[in-house]
Amino acid sequence: MEGDSPLRLRVFSLNCWAIRYLSKRRQERVRLIGDTLQRDSFDLVLLQEVWSEQDYSHLKARLGGCYPFCHYFRSGVIGSGLCVFSRFPILDTLLYQYSLNGYPYMLQHGDWFCGKSVGLVVTEISGITFNVYVTHLHAEYCREKDAYLPHRLVQAWELAQFIRHTSKAADVVLLGGDLNMHPQDVGVRLLRGCTGLQDAFAEAARFEGCEDGCTLIPNNCFTAKAELLPFPLGIRIDYILYKAVSSFTVKCEELKTTTGTAPGMDIPFSDHEAVMATLHIQRQGLAVGATLGTAEAALADVVTEARAEVCVGLQAARQQRFSTGRMAVLALLLLLLQAVAMLAVLAGLAAGQPFPKLSFSLLAFLAVGILLLATGLHLFHTMEVKMLQGTEEQMRLLQRLLQERPSHS
Amino acid sequence: MEGDSPLRLRVFSLNCWAIRYLSKRRQERVRLIGDTLQRDSFDLVLLQEVWSEQDYSHLKARLGGCYPFCHYFRSGVIGSGLCVFSRFPILDTLLYQYSLNGYPYMLQHGDWFCGKSVGLVVTEISGITFNVYVTHLHAEYCREKDAYLPHRLVQAWELAQFIRHTSKAADVVLLGGDLNMHPQDVGVRLLRGCTGLQDAFAEAARFEGCEDGCTLIPNNCFTAKAELLPFPLGIRIDYILYKAVSSFTVKCEELKTTTGTAPGMDIPFSDHEAVMATLHIQRQGLAVGATLGTAEAALADVVTEARAEVCVGLQAARQQRFSTGRMAVLALLLLLLQAVAMLAVLAGLAAGQPFPKLSFSLLAFLAVGILLLATGLHLFHTMEVKMLQGTEEQMRLLQRLLQERPSHS
Repeated sequence: MEGDSPLRLRVFSLNCWAIRYLSKRRQERVRLIGDTLQRDSFDLVLLQEVWSEQDYSHLKARLGGCYPFCHYFRSGVIGSGLCVFSRFPILDTLLYQYSLNGYPYMLQHGDWFCGKSVGLVVTEISGITFNVYVTHLHAEYCREKDAYLPHRLVQAWELAQFIRHTSKAADVVLLGGDLNMHPQDVGVRLLRGCTGLQDAFAEAARFEGCEDGCTLIPNNCFTAKAELLPFPLGIRIDYILYKAVSSFTVKCEELKTTTGTAPGMDIPFSDHEAVMATLHIQRQGLAVGATLGTAEAALADVVTEARAEVCVGLQAARQQRFSTGRMAVLALLLLLLQAVAMLAVLAGLAAGQPFPKLSFSLLAFLAVGILLLATGLHLFHTMEVKMLQGTEEQMRLLQRLLQERPSHS
Repeated sequence: MEGDSPLRLRVFSLNCWAIRYLSKRRQERVRLIGDTLQRDSFDLVLLQEVWSEQDYSHLKARLGGCYPFCHYFRSGVIGSGLCVFSRFPILDTLLYQYSLNGYPYMLQHGDWFCGKSVGLVVTEISGITFNVYVTHLHAEYCREKDAYLPHRLVQAWELAQFIRHTSKAADVVLLGGDLNMHPQDVGVRLLRGCTGLQDAFAEAARFEGCEDGCTLIPNNCFTAKAELLPFPLGIRIDYILYKAVSSFTVKCEELKTTTGTAPGMDIPFSDHEAVMATLHIQRQGLAVGATLGTAEAALADVVTEARAEVCVGLQAARQQRFSTGRMAVLALLLLLLQAVAMLAVLAGLAAGQPFPKLSFSLLAFLAVGILLLATGLHLFHTMEVKMLQGTEEQMRLLQRLLQERPSHS
């Protein structure tokens, strides 16, 4: 082998589904995850959906001996759910919150615990600087009529932007997490095209685990079987992605997933399968810059496709902003009308006629309720329009840049 | 001169105070800003508090000939208020939202329009890569009893982190904006210590403008005179900061501020003065790394001071989280008590006694109001605790790293 001696790195990524009071057999599973990580020592462990700080503290105490460095990303009221355990010193961290959190949609689907940020941990191993990203993107609620696709595209775009802007001095970039998108989805293609990240599953020399690398499978006792009906093998939505920025090469020697149960146990770690990659990193003489021309042409296509989707979302958001605004105005008019009627009664104009107090009050309550709801939704859709517009503009900028330098890196 | 020919760059930064319906003589001032920028052509224009997209569109149309490239940073319901006009192509952009927006405090002070993000624009001029940041930090409401200091420190910290992580591949870093902090405040020292940014005012070879470089002065007809009573000359809270990352040197040839009125006019651009810097950028043979040891020692002191302030804020936030939680529980108990009383009345237990309907309803309304308010505040303070905790942890990490390598860069 040329250059320095190669580095072998073992990475573990898992959506832990550890939501207090909601996730089944949570404490048992968190203990199990801790035991397994303690026994089967990895170099980097990227966990998602560890929502309770208590669970994080448990893992931290359990894993302190094996993984002396760790970081829990705090954000918002309930946190980000993201944490990293490492055998190597964590030199720096940064959390980026996605701008579109889609609360109304989450409420609608009872999914308050939607991921909404990406965490970055910088570490140095054998003189090589690693930027390690962990994230959990917006869930897909309905594949056929996916009204949230523009939102997930905005998140994929923001994730790509964040990685691009922060990884410029890194030797190796790693991303692990639940992207909630299939490998061929436009969001994954956009992310990979913009960042140059490679899919460990596709590149792996050896693979062991669920067929097609699926990470949400019918065999897992915690998955919602109805959602997986169109996919008898399951779906692959959890990833380990990587790339070497400077004069390094990264190869995936082996990729493994769990297969419905934790190794040697009868219950799974989570409703998702864990993804485990063994990477082989080597310094090499010259930087790679081979077929960037074709890659850029492919990227231009993906950006065009993604931008079209964002435009569709923008149109829908504008329509919703308009209709919720109209509803708020109507509710306000109704309230004003009622106030006038009330004043008329008080002034004795309708003396002698019985005043329907109960239905009057009920109507007023209803109007106030609609007014509040419609105003809240209107504000949300206003924000949505702004974010989609911003993303659309950034995508247009990239398209222009790609057109202007078709053959240049 | 050694190396390539030097580059002269003119930068303009202004908090435009363009809040629709609230700011005085807004349209007239925005037109004036546009006319001046058009006439007195700069290379980079960094504007804050351009809250209305209409004003941005006006400026864009007016300045298209002179500044062919521009970007408006969209975020949240009302936007970020930040925009950049440039004579050179904008290659990339990124917006980072600060995690603590302090809404309850803003509401309390009627200041909804508090800055809450930092925008990054990447541009290339004569082969030199520039990372240009524009921001507007949290206002200081009361200097003597500054309850928001921890929040502003969290923002200064996040700004420093964002700049550090995203500027690693840049040749030159520029930051312009309203930091809402005095030059000697711990937040400014923290920002400068962590990023290595230099203050254009302090470094300028020539200066012309308000005494001490003040940017909020009693002479300006739009400033709140009462706030400036302790500072007869005014205060300096708007900055242009810069540094050269790789083998470049940046010098500030000249710094100017407006002095209470727009040049040649009888009204000011804004309640803030504009800051205008002429920078001189030159490629040089070797990278600078001279007295980093002493700089690191100074940084360690600043981080210690800032961390102590954040800890104070954390304690206060924990106390407030507790008391608002307790108030919510008390209001809930009162409501339950009322429900029991109501049931007793309905069950005829208190037959014969007159039931005080009106005061009963009023009390119920009050309890519901307090419950909602206390719950909202409790959620906010929970978030506040998490963010302060996260920042405190990151600062501790930096302290440890600084201690471990006292003489190493």
